[in-house]
Amino acid sequence: MKLVSLVLVFGAVTAYADAGAVSDRLMGAAMSEGRAYQLAQSLTDGVGPRPSGSEGAARAVKWAVAEMRALGLKNVHTEPVRVPHWIRGAAEAEVVAPARQTLRVVALGPSVPTGADGITADVVVVKGFDELKALGDGARGKIVVFDPPAMRRGKSFDEYGRAVAVRGGGAVAAAKQGAVAVLVRSAGTGAYRLPHTGAMHYDDATAKIPAAALAAEDVDLLARLSGHGHVRVHLVLTPKFDGEVESANVIGEVPGRERANEVVLLGAHLDSWDLATGAIDDAAGCAIVMDAARVIAASGRAPKRTVRVVLFMNEEMGLSGARAYAQAHQKELGKHVAALEVDSGEGRPAGFGVVGAAGVALVKKIAAPLATIGAATVTEASEAGADLSPMGGKVAQLSIDQDLTNYFDWHHTAADTFDKIDPMDLALNTAAVAVVAYGLADAGETLPVVAPLRHGMPLPAPSTQPATMSQPATTR
Amino acid sequence: MKLVSLVLVFGAVTAYADAGAVSDRLMGAAMSEGRAYQLAQSLTDGVGPRPSGSEGAARAVKWAVAEMRALGLKNVHTEPVRVPHWIRGAAEAEVVAPARQTLRVVALGPSVPTGADGITADVVVVKGFDELKALGDGARGKIVVFDPPAMRRGKSFDEYGRAVAVRGGGAVAAAKQGAVAVLVRSAGTGAYRLPHTGAMHYDDATAKIPAAALAAEDVDLLARLSGHGHVRVHLVLTPKFDGEVESANVIGEVPGRERANEVVLLGAHLDSWDLATGAIDDAAGCAIVMDAARVIAASGRAPKRTVRVVLFMNEEMGLSGARAYAQAHQKELGKHVAALEVDSGEGRPAGFGVVGAAGVALVKKIAAPLATIGAATVTEASEAGADLSPMGGKVAQLSIDQDLTNYFDWHHTAADTFDKIDPMDLALNTAAVAVVAYGLADAGETLPVVAPLRHGMPLPAPSTQPATMSQPATTR
Repeated sequence: MKLVSLVLVFGAVTAYADAGAVSDRLMGAAMSEGRAYQLAQSLTDGVGPRPSGSEGAARAVKWAVAEMRALGLKNVHTEPVRVPHWIRGAAEAEVVAPARQTLRVVALGPSVPTGADGITADVVVVKGFDELKALGDGARGKIVVFDPPAMRRGKSFDEYGRAVAVRGGGAVAAAKQGAVAVLVRSAGTGAYRLPHTGAMHYDDATAKIPAAALAAEDVDLLARLSGHGHVRVHLVLTPKFDGEVESANVIGEVPGRERANEVVLLGAHLDSWDLATGAIDDAAGCAIVMDAARVIAASGRAPKRTVRVVLFMNEEMGLSGARAYAQAHQKELGKHVAALEVDSGEGRPAGFGVVGAAGVALVKKIAAPLATIGAATVTEASEAGADLSPMGGKVAQLSIDQDLTNYFDWHHTAADTFDKIDPMDLALNTAAVAVVAYGLADAGETLPVVAPLRHGMPLPAPSTQPATMSQPATTR
Repeated sequence: MKLVSLVLVFGAVTAYADAGAVSDRLMGAAMSEGRAYQLAQSLTDGVGPRPSGSEGAARAVKWAVAEMRALGLKNVHTEPVRVPHWIRGAAEAEVVAPARQTLRVVALGPSVPTGADGITADVVVVKGFDELKALGDGARGKIVVFDPPAMRRGKSFDEYGRAVAVRGGGAVAAAKQGAVAVLVRSAGTGAYRLPHTGAMHYDDATAKIPAAALAAEDVDLLARLSGHGHVRVHLVLTPKFDGEVESANVIGEVPGRERANEVVLLGAHLDSWDLATGAIDDAAGCAIVMDAARVIAASGRAPKRTVRVVLFMNEEMGLSGARAYAQAHQKELGKHVAALEVDSGEGRPAGFGVVGAAGVALVKKIAAPLATIGAATVTEASEAGADLSPMGGKVAQLSIDQDLTNYFDWHHTAADTFDKIDPMDLALNTAAVAVVAYGLADAGETLPVVAPLRHGMPLPAPSTQPATMSQPATTR
């Protein structure tokens, strides 16, 4: 009995010491070299905004290929993705009665335009779909303003999922009742009169009406003014849908030392919204997964399996990069032992969320060296990233659990700029992802495949390219 | 000995009980009736933005007259003020090299325009006037970007004063070295890519070059990019100076019961910047002083002296309302026993700042009933409000000391909207101002007159109307 215990103890100590040696090197390189921070600056300040189909997105593809090679990744290449090219144009909104006041507004993608002269109509403010339905004919000829409960600051994407339901589906629901346009409360937190853009969807059976997001303050204003009488708003949106263009996912690898055909996928998305340089969404994710792969490549001993970095194109406007990857690699998905996406900023990591309770124990074991930096808490998660959704049920998924306190203040706004990235938090994320990716790629066992629940987030039709922009789009 | 003590004690108790009876009524009315909050909503949501010379400002004058009458104030009237009418127009800025990126910019008032096609030039980033001077000919033909130390969040106006020095004087200094335009770091806190507008000044001896404020993030960006090579910016500003127009200060009173010709002045400013509805700057101040006067009028026993509410016009673009008041009332200033301005938002009050140490003891005594709400701390202050500056050295001055934690996040931005006002904090301010105003108007003694130091804030030439907008302007 005593002997068995000793063996167990020594066994444990040996395993720990081995893992420790590698995680020391991974964490040391991530924490001391500042390379992720340089990558993030280069992608934001240097490449700039990179909405799907834009010149910036094309620059980002070239940037990613060059940087992955410079980081020492292998098999660096692009894979084709068809993306929509939607150009924002101007957005103006103004209360014209009872007294003139400018509103802060941004078009949702891919909203149709109002025409250069705009639309002037009375507004009707509703809390959500039920209140809209109850209006019956009362929305006809009006601008419907969705005023759902404000998002609370916090750590969960649930609040965002609820806000996104209105943003995504508001135009179709309002058009069905004869509305001429839809304005939604920005899906976000913060009180700085920033409108938050994002994806919405049309439905080919319903009239396409212009759709935009107002700053939270302006929805509050319209709700208050509506309590005192008629409120009339003038709205001008001049976006343009310029067809589809060819773009690409960018891929690079640290080849495995034993089973190179088995893959741990590290994902992030290369496209951003156009209002800023997409620092937290998702230059941070790109920098984290690229630098995590770099420190693994530089560790001196590749893990058994291949670590593959995939920078997806067009997460924001239809997930066509995610679908293209899942389709192009469908025969290989059985050899993907895990996929991890980093797409919730660069807030300090607390641990990991694993889709399916059965996988928690393995990730906990692998993440043990992260206890000192506070990133060793592993929980069951209901989903692990929009770009992984087309692989749902085929590949085991997990995501890093980050502090989201300020994430939705800046998400999808003009304020998503490089300065929002904290160098130490970015390095802590890189360290945590490197340790877990290495561990999963080197482990004797693998994670069980469990389908994500995807609650709160409308998903696009699986494995179809967005031939038009009329299908549901999703984003996180 | 014992008898004397008892007399003193009873005397104190009696005085306390008297003061208590009135302050109970003042504080009860301010805290329970929500009238200040209604006033603030009506002035922001209802009247809207009210920059000097605009239709909104004209509406605000009518609003103030009607509301003062409805509140039960007496001698409600307007007094004429000449104001500049500067119209913002469009503001666009973009990095054109090394890679295109939109910047968030607002013109400073009263900047000259760039012309519709704008200016394209290399930028040179300097920390302040010394670095600019050291450039010598290096600023010629360039856009000078002022990147002073970022304002720290805090409780003092000192940080703001330092930022304002660059905002106010940057254009003249840069033009003297041949610059074609000036861009300054926004004078504010917060990280939401909000540019903060404000006043700047020209000098008739120097070329007038366009002047604008960038969001802090964008100054950071230009500073980072400049570290890597040439940075070229395209700037379009199309403001228009439309001459001077007639406007007004609005005045209302609670006549004193004994010495009605002696005055305690409660000031705030009725104009706002145009980017939002000026909720914290300075609808809150207007609401606080108006409602403080209302609760004094409704207390059932007017104080000995008159409490006079003065809503100044054009605090933001040259203080012409403040100067007009000081000039029109110059013979009466000797009968102004105190002047208190509320122009730093509606943050929770901590007490009062009195110009001159000699006045602290009296205000401390008067403010004693405010201890429970945390507003009884009285300190010496170096200045008490921009609109009081033309009365400096002639009238004793004080101001309410408010929590400024978030004030400069919103100040002079598009986010200065009604939702920023907390109803309880607004009521606490009203209660505190009412108690101190009543006390000063009813006291046996008066505050000594001490001239404010006005440190950190450039002041306009005293007692001249702004015939052109070329003299130094100030604002808080």
